[in-house]
Amino acid sequence: MANLGPGRPRLEQRRRQGTTPRAEILDAAAELFTTKGYANTSTRAVADAVGIRQASLYHHFGAKDDILDALLAETVAGPVELAQRMIGEPEAAATKLYALALFDVRQLRSARWNLGALYLLPELRTERFAAFRRRRDELRGHYERLTAESCSAAGQSDEVRILPFRLVETVIAIRSDEGTAAAETERVIPDAIMRIVGHRGEVGAAADALLARLGEIDIDPA
Amino acid sequence: MANLGPGRPRLEQRRRQGTTPRAEILDAAAELFTTKGYANTSTRAVADAVGIRQASLYHHFGAKDDILDALLAETVAGPVELAQRMIGEPEAAATKLYALALFDVRQLRSARWNLGALYLLPELRTERFAAFRRRRDELRGHYERLTAESCSAAGQSDEVRILPFRLVETVIAIRSDEGTAAAETERVIPDAIMRIVGHRGEVGAAADALLARLGEIDIDPA
Repeated sequence: MANLGPGRPRLEQRRRQGTTPRAEILDAAAELFTTKGYANTSTRAVADAVGIRQASLYHHFGAKDDILDALLAETVAGPVELAQRMIGEPEAAATKLYALALFDVRQLRSARWNLGALYLLPELRTERFAAFRRRRDELRGHYERLTAESCSAAGQSDEVRILPFRLVETVIAIRSDEGTAAAETERVIPDAIMRIVGHRGEVGAAADALLARLGEIDIDPA
Repeated sequence: MANLGPGRPRLEQRRRQGTTPRAEILDAAAELFTTKGYANTSTRAVADAVGIRQASLYHHFGAKDDILDALLAETVAGPVELAQRMIGEPEAAATKLYALALFDVRQLRSARWNLGALYLLPELRTERFAAFRRRRDELRGHYERLTAESCSAAGQSDEVRILPFRLVETVIAIRSDEGTAAAETERVIPDAIMRIVGHRGEVGAAADALLARLGEIDIDPA
């Protein structure tokens, strides 16, 4: 219980998913932000949902926007790490693009809460979230580079450069509208991206092998 | 000034875009909802932005969610009307799909405020917005039907059925991240949809002709 906070006893038994108080706070906040709305959720409501005192919450996060920032970071940490690991690997750009899209769709559709729904919050355009925006722009840059290289290899213009990143993130809208994104989305979206970049031939197996070789990527920094 | 409301004089000169008080209220609310957030905006703030009294605002809209509902309706009214007019027209499904995507991308990227950013609000999942959700589902159904028919005509499976509607709506995320969506998006997205459904050959000119023949579609119900 060393991480529990300033020594006060809990009000109740733990009721959240997560192995640390910090993880429990993030899980509760993620649920409330995505189901009630960010502006509609107070740090008091988050503390209540965890079953801790508000003072204990402030031991872990200085303010509500610090919680949001930590949650948003989780949504891009995994794919950014993967994209960096793929640089210098021998596979063709299209294989890397397929692998990145597959990994990213998978984590967006299987994350416990649909945190990407928070990307459109006006609050994210403030200076407070500049570091997160840069991180997401870094991910977008990896997608655009791999897309441009894939288009070039297929002998076509790269006017579609911005689309694969956007198509992957449609998982967020699908989850928001339908509750879940079907498992087949994990293949349907990367396959559609291959068509968009003009790539012919199977890449799924090579992308799976690349992902297996690069190892597990921990996308939970909590 | 017959539409102005319950007869009180305005506090100030009109300061909003729009030819009626109702349109001015919608324009002010659209700006505040998309830049400050829906939960962060009061009807008082909307009235202040228009330069009218709050009581005058309530003459036009009973509550804040009525304003949101009217704004959301604008985002789908045009493409739904177009999709309905296209039924029974002789063009191939792929041509209709291209025309619908072109029209929809155009209206999403050129609308004064990026109202689609409000689609992910948790409030939209409540009963209050069931009618709007049905209307958007109707539009989604048109996209899925035209996509399935286009795939069938190209001799491929329709596993990509859900993607064209989603790809069109990425204009919303692009605007949210970058401020604007580039003009070429109006062609890049429909062209990418043609690749996704496996359609070969030029359809842009036939889609333009179809849009011209079906006439102007008024997407501003205010």
